[in-house]
Amino acid sequence: MSIQNVYRYVDEHLAEAVDLLNRLVRQPSISAQDRGIGQMAELCVRVLEEERVPVRLLELEGSPPLILGDAAGASPRRLMLYSHYDVQPVDPLEQWHSDPFEPTLRDGKLYGRGVSDNKGDLAARLFALRALRAVSGELPVGVTFMLEGEEEVGSPHLPALMERYGQLFLADAGILEARAMTPGGQPRVVLGVKGMLYVELIARAANQDQHSKLAPVVPSAAWRLNWALATLKATDERVLIGGFYDHVRDWQADELEALADLPDEDGRLLEELGLDAFLGQASGLEYRRRLYGQPTCNVCGIQSGYTGLGSKTVLPAEARAKLDFRLVPDQQPEEILRKLRQHLDQRGFSDIEIRSLGAGVAPARVPIRDPFAQFCAEVAETYYGSSALIFPTEPATIGLSTLNEFLPYTILLAPGAPGYWGSNIHAPNEHIRISDFADSIKFHALLLARFAHETL
Amino acid sequence: MSIQNVYRYVDEHLAEAVDLLNRLVRQPSISAQDRGIGQMAELCVRVLEEERVPVRLLELEGSPPLILGDAAGASPRRLMLYSHYDVQPVDPLEQWHSDPFEPTLRDGKLYGRGVSDNKGDLAARLFALRALRAVSGELPVGVTFMLEGEEEVGSPHLPALMERYGQLFLADAGILEARAMTPGGQPRVVLGVKGMLYVELIARAANQDQHSKLAPVVPSAAWRLNWALATLKATDERVLIGGFYDHVRDWQADELEALADLPDEDGRLLEELGLDAFLGQASGLEYRRRLYGQPTCNVCGIQSGYTGLGSKTVLPAEARAKLDFRLVPDQQPEEILRKLRQHLDQRGFSDIEIRSLGAGVAPARVPIRDPFAQFCAEVAETYYGSSALIFPTEPATIGLSTLNEFLPYTILLAPGAPGYWGSNIHAPNEHIRISDFADSIKFHALLLARFAHETL
Repeated sequence: MSIQNVYRYVDEHLAEAVDLLNRLVRQPSISAQDRGIGQMAELCVRVLEEERVPVRLLELEGSPPLILGDAAGASPRRLMLYSHYDVQPVDPLEQWHSDPFEPTLRDGKLYGRGVSDNKGDLAARLFALRALRAVSGELPVGVTFMLEGEEEVGSPHLPALMERYGQLFLADAGILEARAMTPGGQPRVVLGVKGMLYVELIARAANQDQHSKLAPVVPSAAWRLNWALATLKATDERVLIGGFYDHVRDWQADELEALADLPDEDGRLLEELGLDAFLGQASGLEYRRRLYGQPTCNVCGIQSGYTGLGSKTVLPAEARAKLDFRLVPDQQPEEILRKLRQHLDQRGFSDIEIRSLGAGVAPARVPIRDPFAQFCAEVAETYYGSSALIFPTEPATIGLSTLNEFLPYTILLAPGAPGYWGSNIHAPNEHIRISDFADSIKFHALLLARFAHETL
Repeated sequence: MSIQNVYRYVDEHLAEAVDLLNRLVRQPSISAQDRGIGQMAELCVRVLEEERVPVRLLELEGSPPLILGDAAGASPRRLMLYSHYDVQPVDPLEQWHSDPFEPTLRDGKLYGRGVSDNKGDLAARLFALRALRAVSGELPVGVTFMLEGEEEVGSPHLPALMERYGQLFLADAGILEARAMTPGGQPRVVLGVKGMLYVELIARAANQDQHSKLAPVVPSAAWRLNWALATLKATDERVLIGGFYDHVRDWQADELEALADLPDEDGRLLEELGLDAFLGQASGLEYRRRLYGQPTCNVCGIQSGYTGLGSKTVLPAEARAKLDFRLVPDQQPEEILRKLRQHLDQRGFSDIEIRSLGAGVAPARVPIRDPFAQFCAEVAETYYGSSALIFPTEPATIGLSTLNEFLPYTILLAPGAPGYWGSNIHAPNEHIRISDFADSIKFHALLLARFAHETL
């Protein structure tokens, strides 16, 4: 089989690949709002079966199904490919230029929620199978699909699902969500993820909102929450929760080398975001040390009282803030949750309720010199024609640590994403470039072909 | 004319009075959202004309019309009655047990937005006119109606309207919104109001919401706003804005006497609100000194980022808080606005935008021993059969100071409201007791009859 024939098939049938992605995007699947998840799982089963991938739905009480797809190949070797079929919410909807669930092509770009994160991955991988089979009649290696339905809410059931079904996901190595190229056009191999603790803080005062004339005498939930939050982080960004940094591991020497080898991207991002400077005036290596190495305490959302048009004189009875903490090795979400509770109690805020949203996710890192990492880098260099960059970690969170714990092979984030650095994932007007989507399909086809002969 | 015949007329025709109020309530008129204000003004004109009150619409660019109603009476004496035809927003709508704009009678109570604040006043006053004329064929005194359309947003155009049209509101004395009885059943005469500064604080960071993985490097609007707010008020409720208390006038001796004469109501309110204690553990006279005497810095609402169901990992680009400051003599809204700006600048928050919502309102107080105040107290004691209480001020805000500045007669808040202490004004399930509504009509009829013979 000549890989060039596979590439030609992809180019000639690209409209079909876009159709496949459009089908996936048209089905809303917002796990945070329990919207369309069941229908999306059914759709995934259909498209897998259409590509002749036998499917099993793995069920667990209270969890959307984990989907196992299991296609045999010419070689006994087998690659596990993880994607998730849920997407982020679409708020603020009014900032979208087209319906997030009606994929729209404009100027060579396809807009829609999930076109990049993460339905684009699934469509590209499936179409790579179709192209390989169309050209050679069979797959070069076995492929094990793992499709999760609640990645965007912190994968709360993934540990229990892995404990029960992990042994079904046989493979020699695994790839999580694909990574986009750098703005400079270099493919990325990413070896770790940050962990995550997501909580909601809730302050309550009187039994319902009151007229604000009572403010001299009646406690305000909005002020209570504001004061509590203000004790969590200083204006210099240092998290003030007692012991928060206790288990933060220093960078290893080879990790620091890898960080130093990465190109500068802060200047471009600064402009893109309309900012004068990053926090701490960081740039270059210092920017990367912060972005990849610092744990965070971020306010995802806050709400209390009257937030409509104009003025209303109300004294709020309830106030809520959603916070995410991105954790780095060796912080653990349970430990940070305990310290947060202790901190609020000690600062006089035992009245503030802490509600966990989703199970915590531990941070994870694969060692820099892992052989499968080198393999992914080499395939990417071959396909994309420029040297691959090794990132010790993502600044974001995926259930990598859970998979690494339960599956006995290396799992990492390889190049080949359909999205690019400007894809607006988790934001309005998420989109991909169609040319990147074609490359994503071809890269995955090459990766599978090469993996037949690779010894890890 | 026997006033007893008027009372009998009211009792026999009470259903018509409720119908009149229902008509007013069914028309939404939320000034904060510019909803239905024009239609409400038209409806006011219709119901005034139906009671044979000649009407003039007083127009001003950008303002809803101020409505002047001018009915002649047997005596040359004339009383001005102020009401407002706008209402508060209805959020949170889900806490209403019936549609706020479909008045609903349950257990002798009428529910709907505005039944108490302030459409009930207007309906009761108009029906008092109808009853007086039905019994004696004429009104005992002239009545000047002033109906404002933006009281609930701080009466931004009232000063300009008064400057242009004030001389049309001829009268010997004036009454603002009527006041409800105390829970102990005593009528209230209120001689002042707190002032008001209403602002929105807006923090902005990146040009749109970002994925929260960027939190180590990208500034957060939510944190900026939180930190800025935390500098405004300490957890002991003291406002920290430099010079905030500079012009707060001490209580006068006769004001303190009046406060000391007021009955305790804090115990009942505590229970009603489901609270263990008021701020500062205040009770009795200390509670009243706080409630009536302290200026406030209250968060009416705050919003940033994702506030929907479940979790979303977002780094907010914008955060907004609505604040009301209730001011006491001799604080001035312009002065406090200036000090707020200065405070934020000095604390490193010059990036926070301050947007004024509505014109500021100065605080105002009529002297304790004003003759018209004594007259109102005596009429109330006659009608309600219990001694009237003199309140040096409301804890709330009405455009009293504006009217006092432009109109050459005493204006105050007299008894006779259709609502009661539990009417939930500015809150879900606003309601009145029908028996109070009947009393409100009769009280206003008696007040007008007596005013014909009173010399101030």
